[in-house]
Amino acid sequence: ADVAAGKAKSATCAGCHGSNGIGIMDTYPNLAGQKAGYLAKQLKAFKDGTRADPIMGSMAKPLSDADIANIAAYYASLK
Amino acid sequence: ADVAAGKAKSATCAGCHGSNGIGIMDTYPNLAGQKAGYLAKQLKAFKDGTRADPIMGSMAKPLSDADIANIAAYYASLK
Repeated sequence: ADVAAGKAKSATCAGCHGSNGIGIMDTYPNLAGQKAGYLAKQLKAFKDGTRADPIMGSMAKPLSDADIANIAAYYASLK
Repeated sequence: ADVAAGKAKSATCAGCHGSNGIGIMDTYPNLAGQKAGYLAKQLKAFKDGTRADPIMGSMAKPLSDADIANIAAYYASLK
């Protein structure tokens, strides 16, 4: 996966998950250092609707599999 | 919330999420240092089925609201 491309793609995510991958509210999860496989699995679930969330559904919809892998690798790379 | 009670209750969780809150597989999320509010929200969703996962559904089913708050506080307290 391409961490740099993931970082670029994560600009929208930073609004809720923080520029450092630490959620800005108690119900917005920290993503920094999270497992890449878990993150990708959740983004795919939001994208196909098997995991329901009004915000994350719309966030994940436009992402390609490559975007998902890159974003997951980027957040996993953060401490 | 009672972190010590949460730690005691988390013995079962450690099998997949690690004794230190770091998932043992790439698709099992790290819980250490995660937002307590997010963790509690997800445990409730697994418990009531609005978030579907075969393993987590059965794990969350027997938990009381107090258990959920304590477990969430415990994992949030880990670095």
